Amino acid sequence: MDDVLGFLEQNFDHALAGLTAFCRIPSISAVPSHRHDVMRCAIHLHGAMMRYGATKAGIYPDWGHPVVSGEWSAGRPDAPTVLVYGHYDVQPVDHLEAWQSPPFEPEIRDGYLYGRGTVDDKGQVWMHLMAIEAWRRTRGELPITIKMVVEGEEESEGTSLVSFLAAHGKELAPDAIVISDTAMVARGVPTITLGMRGLCYLEVEVESLPADVHSGTFGGAVENPAQVLCRVLASLKNHYGQVTIPGFYDSVRSLSGRERQELDALACYEEQFRLAAGAQQFSRGEWGYSPFTRMWRRPTLDICGLRSGFIEEGVKTIIPARAHAKISMRLVPDQDPKEIMNATEEHLRLLTQGRAVRLSVKRLDSGRPYLADRNRLAIAAAQRALFRAFGRETVFAYEGGSIPALKTFADMFGKPCVLFGFGLPDEQSHGPNERLLLDNFRLGMKSCALLYDELSRMNK
Amino acid sequence: MDDVLGFLEQNFDHALAGLTAFCRIPSISAVPSHRHDVMRCAIHLHGAMMRYGATKAGIYPDWGHPVVSGEWSAGRPDAPTVLVYGHYDVQPVDHLEAWQSPPFEPEIRDGYLYGRGTVDDKGQVWMHLMAIEAWRRTRGELPITIKMVVEGEEESEGTSLVSFLAAHGKELAPDAIVISDTAMVARGVPTITLGMRGLCYLEVEVESLPADVHSGTFGGAVENPAQVLCRVLASLKNHYGQVTIPGFYDSVRSLSGRERQELDALACYEEQFRLAAGAQQFSRGEWGYSPFTRMWRRPTLDICGLRSGFIEEGVKTIIPARAHAKISMRLVPDQDPKEIMNATEEHLRLLTQGRAVRLSVKRLDSGRPYLADRNRLAIAAAQRALFRAFGRETVFAYEGGSIPALKTFADMFGKPCVLFGFGLPDEQSHGPNERLLLDNFRLGMKSCALLYDELSRMNK
Repeated sequence: MDDVLGFLEQNFDHALAGLTAFCRIPSISAVPSHRHDVMRCAIHLHGAMMRYGATKAGIYPDWGHPVVSGEWSAGRPDAPTVLVYGHYDVQPVDHLEAWQSPPFEPEIRDGYLYGRGTVDDKGQVWMHLMAIEAWRRTRGELPITIKMVVEGEEESEGTSLVSFLAAHGKELAPDAIVISDTAMVARGVPTITLGMRGLCYLEVEVESLPADVHSGTFGGAVENPAQVLCRVLASLKNHYGQVTIPGFYDSVRSLSGRERQELDALACYEEQFRLAAGAQQFSRGEWGYSPFTRMWRRPTLDICGLRSGFIEEGVKTIIPARAHAKISMRLVPDQDPKEIMNATEEHLRLLTQGRAVRLSVKRLDSGRPYLADRNRLAIAAAQRALFRAFGRETVFAYEGGSIPALKTFADMFGKPCVLFGFGLPDEQSHGPNERLLLDNFRLGMKSCALLYDELSRMNK
Repeated sequence: MDDVLGFLEQNFDHALAGLTAFCRIPSISAVPSHRHDVMRCAIHLHGAMMRYGATKAGIYPDWGHPVVSGEWSAGRPDAPTVLVYGHYDVQPVDHLEAWQSPPFEPEIRDGYLYGRGTVDDKGQVWMHLMAIEAWRRTRGELPITIKMVVEGEEESEGTSLVSFLAAHGKELAPDAIVISDTAMVARGVPTITLGMRGLCYLEVEVESLPADVHSGTFGGAVENPAQVLCRVLASLKNHYGQVTIPGFYDSVRSLSGRERQELDALACYEEQFRLAAGAQQFSRGEWGYSPFTRMWRRPTLDICGLRSGFIEEGVKTIIPARAHAKISMRLVPDQDPKEIMNATEEHLRLLTQGRAVRLSVKRLDSGRPYLADRNRLAIAAAQRALFRAFGRETVFAYEGGSIPALKTFADMFGKPCVLFGFGLPDEQSHGPNERLLLDNFRLGMKSCALLYDELSRMNK
């Protein structure tokens, strides 16, 4: 593989120039005024795929922003097919004053490339394109068939990917899926993300009156829905940080001794996550579990929003008519979102029984947790590729949130998904001064090239 | 007194026409675009005072809306001087669609005069003007000296009354103060309001992060300030509805046996207050006390507002950076607002100790509770006047909220204040379809005329 890796080393400046041009396009999918920029970015990416030898490539528009897809056929007809996923849209750039250089004028400082999209996710898409090009230019062919699917709605809401898969999913027929949109636990530590948590998201309303009333006139004799809501929400967790909803933990899969050891071994990297959150310290959280275990392998419940009564500046002495809360629960295998929703609603009803209030619960979103089978060959191939690139054993980590595409692919193809990512926890993927470590850009390209090599030995 | 009361009876239609004209002026003090209407209303009232024989009258502008003042000298030079307070400004008229007739086109239906200001407080101001006129027209002179002070900022915020009193307070030198801006406990039940509760209003902020973070990525390991706030607020009251702030009840004056009996006797009127609040049932509230006792003679704590994180439509999975609450506490004699503020802040700090959060407490407003000495002659005079008008014993009630002017007068003059009001709990003084029972308009005018008679026998 010295030839392929050598090519990447020699052409690093070319790769960086290409990524920089890609990042200059403000493809903010959530802001309607950038709609044209998102399309421009799709066309740019499509052009790059063609330039770098795609046997076919296309732009697939839907109601929202298009999916861009490209295919490179393997030299060997019986080589496995691998679906590579990424996204070319980026987060908004609120708080412009916090950026040290303009978000869409990428700039190198201190060994990083700064700019919106550098790590999330244009940089990681570009690593694959460059790895493909290195194989093509040195060997004249690819060891596997690669089908890139790059969407433009990962940072917003949309149905383009689902529509694309409905129309073209059967043609894709991958033997493995590689998703490059995650982070390593720390600099220099190659990481495979094994799973993500599921979600239950609901909105709770407590109402006691048709309209706000004067807190002087009626205070003490009329039920205050904000107070009832606070009491209910407070009682959803006990003093040990455990969720008190009956049955909540019944289906939670325990960690094996090996998983526990692996997470313990990562404890030294937790501090970076604390810094990334900007927290003075970790919360006490659920008793008996480390921060990583709590973020990755334990379910949790968080209040995402509260609203009741008078919330402007100043004084208004009212008893509010109603109070609202938004609640997100993060689930782990084998919790079932529907069962958890049912148990939660029943528990909320119990907690407000006998109070002079009306409770309503709206179920807004839900998703199942995902955990990869670490014994699949594709995972082992990725481990070997990362070892060859970084010279160091891979660690297994998890993602506390959800990656919608992962769920979609896993459900659709039933094939192993490898979360093969090169971000870092402090690279501000959704914040100001997003950046990508240039070393990781280099190592990421090499890892991708090596991954194709390793996957080529996988039986179809 | 048959002559004076007879005059009022015969001239009822004239009185009603005058009140109707007064109520046509949309003197909404809190809405800047009605500034001119408020001034027009002040001029209208000033004109009426002059027309009804005021020996002097004036409009006293300040930064805000003016105070209108009029004086009628007694025939007898040693007669007592009584300050009569009311206000000519009115509440806004939000939710116009809920009004059955336009708020500023007074209309008679089912024995009520409907319209904004009919009961709060133009109707009650007009009762005094008509009572004065009846005395003047039948006897040629008044039995007491009356100084009316009618402000235009009771329903908004302003300093005009305080400025007016600073400039003219000494000239007023009343022997008693009569405030007509309260309600009877029920139809046909003459009521003197003996006291009002005080206030501590504060804003609490709990902060754990510099910015919102993803509830998936960090949920379980980072302190959620909304959760901490809910836990803190929930713990401010125990299962018995008692406030748990240490020392909160230390200075609360117990009810005497007689006061307890009086409140028990009023229990049959509580239902009307529940209906006025629109509540399905009263709250459990503080254990061992009736609704009236809880509203009038017991301190309480209410959440007036809550705000944290994402409060729009839909889903946003965040751990909020901070959470806010507005809290109002209603105090009773002899609680001291400053001591209660201190105890509350100290307790809040204790409750958040050891949590990874920063707590800040802002003190926004406070006021001392007020309780009249029921043995003052002016109170007895008012009781007799109401008995003569209604043919029924007066009951003593209280006001759960605050009347800023009462506090101002009580502190300034150290003279008895008589809260002598003719509203009803269901007359929607701040809501749509505000109304005044015509029977009470009639009885109110007669009560005022009789009150002047009774007060004239009071020693200076």
